[in-house]
Amino acid sequence: MASKTRDRILDLSLVMFNERGEPNVTTNHIADELEISPGNLYYHFRNKDDIVEHLFARYESRMDTVMVAPEDRAPTLEDIWLQLHLAFECMWDYRFILRDLVDLTSRNRKLRLHYARIIKRAQQNVTDVLLGLARAEVMRASRQEIEATATNILLVATFWMNFNQVRGAQPERAAQDLTRGIFQVMMLLAPFLRDTERLHIHTLAQAYVK
Amino acid sequence: MASKTRDRILDLSLVMFNERGEPNVTTNHIADELEISPGNLYYHFRNKDDIVEHLFARYESRMDTVMVAPEDRAPTLEDIWLQLHLAFECMWDYRFILRDLVDLTSRNRKLRLHYARIIKRAQQNVTDVLLGLARAEVMRASRQEIEATATNILLVATFWMNFNQVRGAQPERAAQDLTRGIFQVMMLLAPFLRDTERLHIHTLAQAYVK
Repeated sequence: MASKTRDRILDLSLVMFNERGEPNVTTNHIADELEISPGNLYYHFRNKDDIVEHLFARYESRMDTVMVAPEDRAPTLEDIWLQLHLAFECMWDYRFILRDLVDLTSRNRKLRLHYARIIKRAQQNVTDVLLGLARAEVMRASRQEIEATATNILLVATFWMNFNQVRGAQPERAAQDLTRGIFQVMMLLAPFLRDTERLHIHTLAQAYVK
Repeated sequence: MASKTRDRILDLSLVMFNERGEPNVTTNHIADELEISPGNLYYHFRNKDDIVEHLFARYESRMDTVMVAPEDRAPTLEDIWLQLHLAFECMWDYRFILRDLVDLTSRNRKLRLHYARIIKRAQQNVTDVLLGLARAEVMRASRQEIEATATNILLVATFWMNFNQVRGAQPERAAQDLTRGIFQVMMLLAPFLRDTERLHIHTLAQAYVK
């Protein structure tokens, strides 16, 4: 029963952080919304940062399941589309983290270490996938280009939602904009591909830029 | 004399916002540091947001001088390096804006419109430069690739400092990291270039990734 309350606190906090922004939600708001006493909430979590840390850990472990390259064969472009979809879905589900990333990671050392680790692992994963594509000669790129591209892929994926917001996108378009983010990442790869694959990506991409 | 105080307030606010982060600086801190009374400060500016808006306007007009394509000839790669340097220097000088961009633009409508306009103009400028390179056959890219690349260039440039921070870069490396940002943007172009220019960029880039 206790652990059920704990999970309910985490689930509801995630919803409230995503909807209102983490800085605008207090532990009292969360307790109110759950109709439990603040004391009951504090029985499960020391403070709001404790809740945020647990949500970070969930985010990290979900991202870990996304960041898996096929072990027994070379990665294909289809693998990359799929990974991108899963990664963007995960980022969307935990969008409060990405929205306030700089603040969250600068005010809390644990979160900073968490996030640096997520980025490092993702960088390694993306680099491995791109090296696989280069070995299979689907993509033509130097080692330096692959590393720089892996960094750009992470940066575009991480800050896509923020970029859309600051350039004045309409909030009601958020779902389409997310799809557009996947397209933007694929466009980072397109110019490195063989002509056949490059054309193939552009055909597939038509579905993404409505 | 009055206008001199006004400029001093703006200059010092910029320094303090950059050093401490805009949310951590109040008008009282600024008045204290300048050794003027809060009343004197309020004679010149209604509130802190008024100061921030004036600094945004300065940032916007400086960015406008950067975003100028050569009128009488096709743009070259050297033009792009130069533009990138000027743009990154400008972003560095006003780094408090980029650090808290999402918060600043979501809490204040004027700033939101300002920034959306800056991004729109930059997108147009970058697209024009890339179209010029494509016409000169220095670069091989479809219209769709050019537009997607222009967006990626803006996104990488805008969030480069934030990305570095969240992946745990050392603050004392900030200047080198800025140079690395210019390199990352050039790497967005490299794969579209003719082999000669692509190689040329890689040679130039060596200076950027020490």
